[in-house]
Amino acid sequence: MSTEAKPLVMLGLPKGSLEEATLRLFAKAGFKITKSSRSYRPSIDDPELDGRFVRAQEISRYVEHGYFDCGLTGHDWVVENGSDVVEVCDLIYSRASAVKSRWVLVVPEASPVQSVKDLEGKRIATEVTNIVGRYLKENNVNAEVEFSWGATEVKVPDLVDAIVDLTETGNSIRANKLRIVDTLLETNTKLVANRKSWEDPVKRKKIENIALLLRSALQADKMVGLKLNIPKEKVDGIMSSLPALRNPTISPLSCSKYVALEVILDEYVVRELIPTLKAHDAEGIIEYPLNKVVPD
Amino acid sequence: MSTEAKPLVMLGLPKGSLEEATLRLFAKAGFKITKSSRSYRPSIDDPELDGRFVRAQEISRYVEHGYFDCGLTGHDWVVENGSDVVEVCDLIYSRASAVKSRWVLVVPEASPVQSVKDLEGKRIATEVTNIVGRYLKENNVNAEVEFSWGATEVKVPDLVDAIVDLTETGNSIRANKLRIVDTLLETNTKLVANRKSWEDPVKRKKIENIALLLRSALQADKMVGLKLNIPKEKVDGIMSSLPALRNPTISPLSCSKYVALEVILDEYVVRELIPTLKAHDAEGIIEYPLNKVVPD
Amino acid sequence: MSTEAKPLVMLGLPKGSLEEATLRLFAKAGFKITKSSRSYRPSIDDPELDGRFVRAQEISRYVEHGYFDCGLTGHDWVVENGSDVVEVCDLIYSRASAVKSRWVLVVPEASPVQSVKDLEGKRIATEVTNIVGRYLKENNVNAEVEFSWGATEVKVPDLVDAIVDLTETGNSIRANKLRIVDTLLETNTKLVANRKSWEDPVKRKKIENIALLLRSALQADKMVGLKLNIPKEKVDGIMSSLPALRNPTISPLSCSKYVALEVILDEYVVRELIPTLKAHDAEGIIEYPLNKVVPD
Amino acid sequence: MSTEAKPLVMLGLPKGSLEEATLRLFAKAGFKITKSSRSYRPSIDDPELDGRFVRAQEISRYVEHGYFDCGLTGHDWVVENGSDVVEVCDLIYSRASAVKSRWVLVVPEASPVQSVKDLEGKRIATEVTNIVGRYLKENNVNAEVEFSWGATEVKVPDLVDAIVDLTETGNSIRANKLRIVDTLLETNTKLVANRKSWEDPVKRKKIENIALLLRSALQADKMVGLKLNIPKEKVDGIMSSLPALRNPTISPLSCSKYVALEVILDEYVVRELIPTLKAHDAEGIIEYPLNKVVPD
Amino acid sequence: MSTEAKPLVMLGLPKGSLEEATLRLFAKAGFKITKSSRSYRPSIDDPELDGRFVRAQEISRYVEHGYFDCGLTGHDWVVENGSDVVEVCDLIYSRASAVKSRWVLVVPEASPVQSVKDLEGKRIATEVTNIVGRYLKENNVNAEVEFSWGATEVKVPDLVDAIVDLTETGNSIRANKLRIVDTLLETNTKLVANRKSWEDPVKRKKIENIALLLRSALQADKMVGLKLNIPKEKVDGIMSSLPALRNPTISPLSCSKYVALEVILDEYVVRELIPTLKAHDAEGIIEYPLNKVVPD
Amino acid sequence: MSTEAKPLVMLGLPKGSLEEATLRLFAKAGFKITKSSRSYRPSIDDPELDGRFVRAQEISRYVEHGYFDCGLTGHDWVVENGSDVVEVCDLIYSRASAVKSRWVLVVPEASPVQSVKDLEGKRIATEVTNIVGRYLKENNVNAEVEFSWGATEVKVPDLVDAIVDLTETGNSIRANKLRIVDTLLETNTKLVANRKSWEDPVKRKKIENIALLLRSALQADKMVGLKLNIPKEKVDGIMSSLPALRNPTISPLSCSKYVALEVILDEYVVRELIPTLKAHDAEGIIEYPLNKVVPD
Repeated sequence: MSTEAKPLVMLGLPKGSLEEATLRLFAKAGFKITKSSRSYRPSIDDPELDGRFVRAQEISRYVEHGYFDCGLTGHDWVVENGSDVVEVCDLIYSRASAVKSRWVLVVPEASPVQSVKDLEGKRIATEVTNIVGRYLKENNVNAEVEFSWGATEVKVPDLVDAIVDLTETGNSIRANKLRIVDTLLETNTKLVANRKSWEDPVKRKKIENIALLLRSALQADKMVGLKLNIPKEKVDGIMSSLPALRNPTISPLSCSKYVALEVILDEYVVRELIPTLKAHDAEGIIEYPLNKVVPD
Repeated sequence: MSTEAKPLVMLGLPKGSLEEATLRLFAKAGFKITKSSRSYRPSIDDPELDGRFVRAQEISRYVEHGYFDCGLTGHDWVVENGSDVVEVCDLIYSRASAVKSRWVLVVPEASPVQSVKDLEGKRIATEVTNIVGRYLKENNVNAEVEFSWGATEVKVPDLVDAIVDLTETGNSIRANKLRIVDTLLETNTKLVANRKSWEDPVKRKKIENIALLLRSALQADKMVGLKLNIPKEKVDGIMSSLPALRNPTISPLSCSKYVALEVILDEYVVRELIPTLKAHDAEGIIEYPLNKVVPD
Repeated sequence: MSTEAKPLVMLGLPKGSLEEATLRLFAKAGFKITKSSRSYRPSIDDPELDGRFVRAQEISRYVEHGYFDCGLTGHDWVVENGSDVVEVCDLIYSRASAVKSRWVLVVPEASPVQSVKDLEGKRIATEVTNIVGRYLKENNVNAEVEFSWGATEVKVPDLVDAIVDLTETGNSIRANKLRIVDTLLETNTKLVANRKSWEDPVKRKKIENIALLLRSALQADKMVGLKLNIPKEKVDGIMSSLPALRNPTISPLSCSKYVALEVILDEYVVRELIPTLKAHDAEGIIEYPLNKVVPD
Repeated sequence: MSTEAKPLVMLGLPKGSLEEATLRLFAKAGFKITKSSRSYRPSIDDPELDGRFVRAQEISRYVEHGYFDCGLTGHDWVVENGSDVVEVCDLIYSRASAVKSRWVLVVPEASPVQSVKDLEGKRIATEVTNIVGRYLKENNVNAEVEFSWGATEVKVPDLVDAIVDLTETGNSIRANKLRIVDTLLETNTKLVANRKSWEDPVKRKKIENIALLLRSALQADKMVGLKLNIPKEKVDGIMSSLPALRNPTISPLSCSKYVALEVILDEYVVRELIPTLKAHDAEGIIEYPLNKVVPD
Repeated sequence: MSTEAKPLVMLGLPKGSLEEATLRLFAKAGFKITKSSRSYRPSIDDPELDGRFVRAQEISRYVEHGYFDCGLTGHDWVVENGSDVVEVCDLIYSRASAVKSRWVLVVPEASPVQSVKDLEGKRIATEVTNIVGRYLKENNVNAEVEFSWGATEVKVPDLVDAIVDLTETGNSIRANKLRIVDTLLETNTKLVANRKSWEDPVKRKKIENIALLLRSALQADKMVGLKLNIPKEKVDGIMSSLPALRNPTISPLSCSKYVALEVILDEYVVRELIPTLKAHDAEGIIEYPLNKVVPD
Repeated sequence: MSTEAKPLVMLGLPKGSLEEATLRLFAKAGFKITKSSRSYRPSIDDPELDGRFVRAQEISRYVEHGYFDCGLTGHDWVVENGSDVVEVCDLIYSRASAVKSRWVLVVPEASPVQSVKDLEGKRIATEVTNIVGRYLKENNVNAEVEFSWGATEVKVPDLVDAIVDLTETGNSIRANKLRIVDTLLETNTKLVANRKSWEDPVKRKKIENIALLLRSALQADKMVGLKLNIPKEKVDGIMSSLPALRNPTISPLSCSKYVALEVILDEYVVRELIPTLKAHDAEGIIEYPLNKVVPD
């Protein structure tokens, strides 16, 4: 093992709930990361890369210290840890959805608390004690903040007066008969880099390539390819009335009054577009999946 | 919640064995339906749609009553419930196969029963008591029909003389040493609509669009895209001898005596086609997957 | 059942760890093999084919005996069983990776054994007793070889002096504090055929078609399609500096100074290629997945 | 198989949620019932007994018809099916608890329905349509009753106005924001017998023995054995002040001023009794588990 | 690790299907064997004992070689391996039942084979090739015997003419439409010891103690304790008419015309005994479970 | 719900790895705690008790605050949280074993760190930052302590120089090629009480009863009952040579030269005792399980 070359870039990968989604994302980006069940050391099919699986909460800390050249973690944990790192790009993916999450101040539906000011002298449980501490200070409120080891939302009102917890849709909060009072921080996954690695041109080039490929893979999740044939004389009409058909490739079809049109577009517009295209005499409409859409 | 807009169309979705396949079908059609594990209320990423998961047996009843504007259910349950609904289109998908299922009259291999006439005075267990009752009446046979709560096929010959049960291939029936005497009803999944909703032009338009997208997604499951290059002079020969290559897109290749040919076709013909194409000097043959094939 | 036509070709399919991967491979090749959970007789949607699931270790034996016309099994078991069969083609696929495996002679890290010669009078456990027996004989070494029913690698040094075991990367061997002394045999999955079936031109044609389709599906796992637009004047420069872009399809874009370029290439080169293409002013780069890449 | 003796008594056993608990109950009673995973025919280690697993809803029907001599089923299904059977004894056991369940009329919390009278013209979903039909008739109420295939409690208020559902504690009903209006029927598991089998003295003797052993096993679940030593002179005081110590066995201890006291009593009294016994100078208190407590 | 004392006795424990049952048996005997999920080295709470989990097929081989002082394995594998070991005692336990298993010669129901003599020139698959080889030789039959890696019973009639397989009840064989022609060997689990260890008095003493405790635990699985009170004048009558009440402990009850009777007996007689005892005016009958019944 | 009586005592129960063991312990003590899968509010079959499931790390905090009257938690978390609570009694139980655990300072095998003094200027990861902070201060060492969110032992040596982690046997630490330098704290589960609740005589009485019953149940896990018959004349000899037979109950057997001896003793001595008893002519030796052994 002593003869192994040092990898160019050391990656911090999030262990736990994002783990599977992260492996799939890298695979789509073109990097095969294999993880044996017992180990936190994955093997990566790129000799320039090595990595470790660490809890998302801790990645920014070890990127800052320089053990990782870059890593995937939430913006929230960069703030909570006060880590001095470069935020390279957003990587909005998660198990259930693709929206931003937020840390919110939550109280029971029936609580008298209407704003942060009403927390004076109260007790608040949270996983992000630094963020909450700063928030209270900025609002000149004195309250006791205690670290919560999990299952935070069952703690109000029995154990504490309020909590600061993470939510995507707020559904679970409402189902628990709780109420959101304020938003402290919006967050999503980011690729973050160590400051010194970012200044090293070779490492920075590699990190930028990884960022480009990950973003290409993420974008492909939400986009599809569409092919169709339309009568030549209808091309202009369709193009002007359907702005979703941005930058199509139009090819003549041999011996035909039709042309072939191919376009890459957001998946969510397709369900509206197809009935409209049919109304414009489009034929042979097919949709195909994509692996990568490289940002121009 | 009181301020939420009423959705344009309310969908009845089958709970249980078809649930996963239904979610995948809608996803492919372009609708993301998210279902929390405990709830029968999914969330759908189209503000014009809402839905509920209900047992397939009950959907036609609630479509008829107007609680759902449309729903996915088997033709058999429309008949069993005697529901007055519009059958919009077939949606042939299921867990294991894409063939039609049928409700059959089944007796033990050694039973003397050879036709429905021999059931006079016998006892029959089934999940579809109305269908069986009507069938006996049409054949002027008096027999006792009892509702079976499940595991119907183990009931003959110990508990009843005959059963009416659902089968796709008949394999399980033969494995249980049983014999099919008659077929009462062929069935497959349908999209059905409430009569009043179908008369409302806005709702009908939406339901027709859903039908179009679901059918496009189903068709794509069985079709693929094929690309290949052939010598220009062989195009006509290939096209006439290979009728599977219907409606290809033929494009010239720059500086080449080859042309590029692209075609969408049924997956099951590909395995026969590829060896033949190679025998015709086709090169660079690739097959790619499809998300949707919109019916012309 | 007595009226069922005899299938043209009888297939031996590997049961156990390769089973799922084999079903997926055939599905991608265009053959839907359905396996009920209790049965070793699958159903195949091609009336010319029938098959059985048998342990990989035994397939070559039943291909040689003629019960199977062809089958998928490892080269190692052909050798171990001494089966006289035709090796039609390599099919390199497995659960975890796509590399060759090898049977290696393994001893504890601290063992004095440095070569096969040091095994004189020792005891060796292995699943391939014939291969090991021949290996010892070729090296004029007398040692006791005993059949191991599994978990072979925990047997050294407590129960035996050395083992001959299968490994892909050697990681598990090193983790058990063992050392590789020699390689006896490299192996991978093959399609093998019965000698008589291979001489029958109709059967051979069918077996060759199966081989072609399986190889096309395997190749598609490692390749992708890439599309992009480049300024007309840059085409030659890119083509000469990027040898990976072998045999592209280049099409003119209507009313544009760009041309569309499409190419099929190995997935692993894409991650290097994309940054380079962007540096050459390529635009609209997308990658799409493939089902089959037919070898020319 | 033709030479197998006919068993004396044929047992109907409930399939599904009560299945595991039933097997454990019979095992404790002394009958080992082995069930292969695919079969509804168990094997029983008593040559006089045979049995079948059938849905609990259907057992009373097949006991009445005489296919089973006796069976375990709920009182509710005897009533729903209108089966003419002998109710031999109560067997109060279930997965979660040992209390009676009840079928209750349930409406949304905010519903105007306050009594059965308010159901006039409404729609009610239930699994027990006969029980509900009779209940409405007795109350001179006209309402539509529809069969529910399950998940009944999510149907109010969207799909129907009211439901009749089974509950033990009412917790799930309250959690769904529903309200209980009335109780239609209390129910628990019973051993029921066919009228003719009950008149046959040999069969009746066997059924009574099964009943005795099942009741002994059930009683043992709630009782324990307690042993302790007390000073001779305290015996009378303890016995009079602790009525739970009914019918103890008191034995002299050799060469001691203590006597040994042993008693069988309900487990739930032990947690109160032990501190009291210690206060009365009892020593060496131990509690041991029981397999059977035969009713006197 | 080099300073660890060598254990007095090294145990071979069967890995696989008997593993869980073996751990429970030792626990009941008083030895806590803890097995980490990845390791084949358990830890045992007796400093004089160490052990390894090895496939049951291989244990006798390593007991003979002296690596284990004793081990649990089937009599069949002692014979198959031709191991020269001491069979200390029977230990009849298994997952499903407590009966002996047997290796049987099995052919398809419709096969012409009626006795071993009819196997001349046939092919037979089995896991015990040595036992089958010897059996054929004793019967002067020439046939090909091939090693089966498992799922032996699906191999007839397609792949081989006959099999020799293990069965307990023969149910699975009949369900596969096969027929038993002959029994080659009866077998059950045994404790076997190395000949040299058995001659060492200290080791032998330890092995005998283990055997005694394991047998005590096994016996307790099939026996229970019964307590009851009977009128003094009925004691003799009951004792003479109920031979199952062997060796009871009879104690006077203070101030009572009853005596207390306690007896240890086979569980399977209890279900017959209890009704009879009640008929003899027995009262307060309880049954309690046992951990060990030491053979006298 | 507003009319529900307030329970006398509110219990803090540990969520997570100890949860199942805790439910079993209370069940054996006589309290049936039922936990629905989604809720942290169990129901307890004692109207004087209510409880909540909370992470073990947080229980002492909420006992100190008075939300719980008492709770089960580790001594370590009482210390880490600096909670001012009453430690009522030890309750040594856990998933795998019954031994004490300890928080230890751990470094890589090859690390130069030999004592706490060598940590000057190093970085240490731990879940118990307060305990480690105090430990460093007491030893006048300056080092950076960082909170570890889990999987602490994979962090050395890559991410930090040392860790402080919990261990029972040290096996996992050695398997990871790490070395224990020092022990900071021994710990086991305790019942802790709120100071004010402890001063309230009614609450204290209830808490003491709970403690007594839990300890009785725990003690019964490690003890068994033994019964045997010995010749009258051997009683004194056995009693003096076998000190394990403390405080037996000796009863005369009617018409016999044997006496019955019954004793409660530690399970681990039984495996030594039984062979010895047999050597002393004991007969009819049986062992039975216990539910509770109340401490005298």
